[in-house]
Amino acid sequence: MSFRQQLPWTASPLIVSAPMGGFAGPELAAAVSRAGGLGLIGALDTPDTISAQLQQTRELLGAHPAVETGDGRLPVGVGLLLFVLRKKRAQVLDVLARHEPSVIWLFAEQELNDYAEWAGEIRRACPRSQIWIQTCSVSGAVELARTAKPDVLVMQGADAGGHGWEMGAGIISLVPETRDALARDKLAVDVVASGGIVDARGVAAALSLGADAVVMGTRFLASEEVVVHPRYQKQVLDTEDGGQLTVRAKVFDELAGPNRWPVLYNGRAIVSNSYRDHRVGVDIDEIRTRHKNAVAGTDLGWGDNQRAVVWSGTGVGMVKAVHPAGVIVREIREAVATKLEDARARL
Amino acid sequence: MSFRQQLPWTASPLIVSAPMGGFAGPELAAAVSRAGGLGLIGALDTPDTISAQLQQTRELLGAHPAVETGDGRLPVGVGLLLFVLRKKRAQVLDVLARHEPSVIWLFAEQELNDYAEWAGEIRRACPRSQIWIQTCSVSGAVELARTAKPDVLVMQGADAGGHGWEMGAGIISLVPETRDALARDKLAVDVVASGGIVDARGVAAALSLGADAVVMGTRFLASEEVVVHPRYQKQVLDTEDGGQLTVRAKVFDELAGPNRWPVLYNGRAIVSNSYRDHRVGVDIDEIRTRHKNAVAGTDLGWGDNQRAVVWSGTGVGMVKAVHPAGVIVREIREAVATKLEDARARL
Repeated sequence: MSFRQQLPWTASPLIVSAPMGGFAGPELAAAVSRAGGLGLIGALDTPDTISAQLQQTRELLGAHPAVETGDGRLPVGVGLLLFVLRKKRAQVLDVLARHEPSVIWLFAEQELNDYAEWAGEIRRACPRSQIWIQTCSVSGAVELARTAKPDVLVMQGADAGGHGWEMGAGIISLVPETRDALARDKLAVDVVASGGIVDARGVAAALSLGADAVVMGTRFLASEEVVVHPRYQKQVLDTEDGGQLTVRAKVFDELAGPNRWPVLYNGRAIVSNSYRDHRVGVDIDEIRTRHKNAVAGTDLGWGDNQRAVVWSGTGVGMVKAVHPAGVIVREIREAVATKLEDARARL
Repeated sequence: MSFRQQLPWTASPLIVSAPMGGFAGPELAAAVSRAGGLGLIGALDTPDTISAQLQQTRELLGAHPAVETGDGRLPVGVGLLLFVLRKKRAQVLDVLARHEPSVIWLFAEQELNDYAEWAGEIRRACPRSQIWIQTCSVSGAVELARTAKPDVLVMQGADAGGHGWEMGAGIISLVPETRDALARDKLAVDVVASGGIVDARGVAAALSLGADAVVMGTRFLASEEVVVHPRYQKQVLDTEDGGQLTVRAKVFDELAGPNRWPVLYNGRAIVSNSYRDHRVGVDIDEIRTRHKNAVAGTDLGWGDNQRAVVWSGTGVGMVKAVHPAGVIVREIREAVATKLEDARARL
């Protein structure tokens, strides 16, 4: 776990809040880092908004000298949705160089080899920042370790909420197979697990599988600091049976117009009326009309008519209450040892 | 883990070989039980073949007095594909009463409430056998615990090879959410995890998630005792990147004629040329013709043309060599404690 030496404010096991675009803002990132985790600013569309949120995070953390990198880097990370930012790369690099977030998390480029190009330029612009790349395949991970040489590979399992690859394994096999493949090729990269982890049991499982740290997204949708409509959050709290009432589908990206995501991707969200329409063959134009009318309402479509998209992982059924993000991080972190010891004792 | 008291030949953590229809025969079941695991005879179509295989298993185990139930029950289990056997229930019950397998594993009934009916009749026919039910949803598990009252719920994650529900979570969230839901309703049922587990890391993870034991299928496809065509087994050994090169789809059940499986089900298999045809829109009749021609060959379609179905879970990428089933069971079982201790030590 060499990567943790450069994140000196963090405690073990490291808990990372996912860079949920639009939901994970400065308040959430700062709260997670303040609790000894690694907070990430979610993916944003423009260099200006990225800059504004990093600046705001710096101000929030300025009052907490305990959360320190020791060298001026910002003790949070930022997620970059590469296919969205590809034409604004120079400005993005400028923003990153100015703020120096400790971690720069790359995701969703059109082609696997575009990551190496971004990684090279980011390394020149801000050499003290770590580069993390999230992917969903073992062969992709090996290729990225060779070409883009990230500090960390985030292996995203199929249980994850929001966007990921249409095809993929859960972390139960994805993480150990990736570990084996990297070791076989003598590629020294740290591996972080994401997808389906919402509590200390999930963290203990991920560590048993060989992960060096874990990412949680869905669990932080029920944090006090997340930026989310109350009706969106209520659906997260109310949904049970996460494997049955969430689903991966491309239709979630087609509601507001043509799907702009790279072809390998879809997203996992709570089963909605738009998805139900899609399953029974309603025409996409009709689904879009129904969606448009719903999101024009005061609940933005996240209420009872369940038209708008509530991105969520399969762990949603265990997310029952809203807590401060720092409490979530600390309570989970402190319970992991016991979970591992209990499993050992039951043998 | 009250269920293990009635399986006195087994060691902890309990490793179970999945009842893979057509592949898991007497040799595999006997070898797994001989090694302190629980071997299962795979699902079969007729009461006569079930009876013949149970009889053969008894003969195989007769020479090994160490594997003993102590009361005449057969120290293996048998899987029953309920929708196939529904019209032969009386004969099936007769066979079960005669052989008394220690575990009777129920799977794939058309309706959730049919399980309770089967369970009641099995209990009358062979009261000393345990009833295990495999399912894929949390709400289904709670309902089954209330109505069919199985000794064990096998929670099957989406990573599992072969048949399971089309929708579902991996065990990373399925197992702990099920545990919580059962506890909330004060339902005392043991929970066993299946799907994506192929080695000691997977077992350690499953135990951390709250499972009482684990099932492995794909790993035993690379055992010496499994009944499988060499080219089928070679595809299992050769396939890497399990989340990308296996896929869940209904087309695998449509190749030889109309799909006979209950509507909630599909199966996970290695990506084949039949699947590729299906993805690009080739008509099912044409796919069936190509399949028929391929399986008429000496490799039964499991060779280079990759037409026939190679059921396999996402853990396939970690299955690299064929070993005796007993070696697999013992080596994994003995490594679990170390995996949990290592994870604890790395905190």
